[in-house]
Amino acid sequence: MAIIQFSVVPLGTGGTSISPYVAEVHKVLQNSGVTHRLTPMGTVLEGPLPQLMEVIQKCHEVPFEQGAQRVMTLINIDDRRDKDATAAGKMKSVEDKLA
Amino acid sequence: MAIIQFSVVPLGTGGTSISPYVAEVHKVLQNSGVTHRLTPMGTVLEGPLPQLMEVIQKCHEVPFEQGAQRVMTLINIDDRRDKDATAAGKMKSVEDKLA
Amino acid sequence: MAIIQFSVVPLGTGGTSISPYVAEVHKVLQNSGVTHRLTPMGTVLEGPLPQLMEVIQKCHEVPFEQGAQRVMTLINIDDRRDKDATAAGKMKSVEDKLA
Amino acid sequence: MAIIQFSVVPLGTGGTSISPYVAEVHKVLQNSGVTHRLTPMGTVLEGPLPQLMEVIQKCHEVPFEQGAQRVMTLINIDDRRDKDATAAGKMKSVEDKLA
Repeated sequence: MAIIQFSVVPLGTGGTSISPYVAEVHKVLQNSGVTHRLTPMGTVLEGPLPQLMEVIQKCHEVPFEQGAQRVMTLINIDDRRDKDATAAGKMKSVEDKLA
Repeated sequence: MAIIQFSVVPLGTGGTSISPYVAEVHKVLQNSGVTHRLTPMGTVLEGPLPQLMEVIQKCHEVPFEQGAQRVMTLINIDDRRDKDATAAGKMKSVEDKLA
Repeated sequence: MAIIQFSVVPLGTGGTSISPYVAEVHKVLQNSGVTHRLTPMGTVLEGPLPQLMEVIQKCHEVPFEQGAQRVMTLINIDDRRDKDATAAGKMKSVEDKLA
Repeated sequence: MAIIQFSVVPLGTGGTSISPYVAEVHKVLQNSGVTHRLTPMGTVLEGPLPQLMEVIQKCHEVPFEQGAQRVMTLINIDDRRDKDATAAGKMKSVEDKLA
């Protein structure tokens, strides 16, 4: 099980707003069955790495379908094999130390 | 006002856990007065860009003070000058389109 | 054809050196037939996106095979559909404007 | 001495080309005296961390001066305190292991 943050950024669209593209990406995620969470600077996924990489490739296509001609997609994979890690668990681990 | 996600990653520490370092980073943030929010893959800041860059440099020093010999710090700046943007506003803008 | 920079970073290895892991990653790339170029902060690939994503997943496994228990892999995809882009072409385009 | 890769990406410009912006960024770098190297997916700097962070902030302003209303700047800091590291040295270390 990997935790991945990714963001899909259309370039040269003629408008500064990205949210119409991110919303369409999230429709793909909702249909994918993959655990996902919107954050201010990207979307966090959890699951088996090959499945996540496949859904991210689908999401990367979304802005092209909406008319963009260039898309930059940023992906950050955190993959831990010594224990089961979750996005919630990572945050709790920090919060517990701060409490 | 910029929105920044950053993460401070110590390398070669001999242990797979990063949360002890992230917790110390968040103590620096708590003392900085900067608006910050922990996410599963990093920390999101909001504020004037020079102030945020200064506090990130302080955070980058934290793992060295804890004994790390190599630190990788990832920063993603989102800076919009055509309107006031906030981390909460960015998320609401997507959620509204999905509702 | 996409251009991708990626880097595979093992965490908690007990040593600050990463080059033994990067060298093994490049052996995988050499056997893959994918166009690749080492840069100071990552490796740049060129080719069809699905093929590149598959080879990056293979590269992501390399540090685990070498004993690492946690791996962070960073990926930046630049995908342009309005013209054929290459890594060399991107650099030449900037250099021409500076000349 | 830190090694940093960064890229300055204007959003919503109405054109897919980024090289006019990157070329202007490199003029700032040429005047800065900072060691810099163009790569296909970003620019690599070497030097004292505070100086590099200051010049990156100057570079981040460039697309705004050229009319962009939103700029995303990605920064990856590699900072090693156990030995003197250079961009060229990092690459040589990998190449030696592959030879």
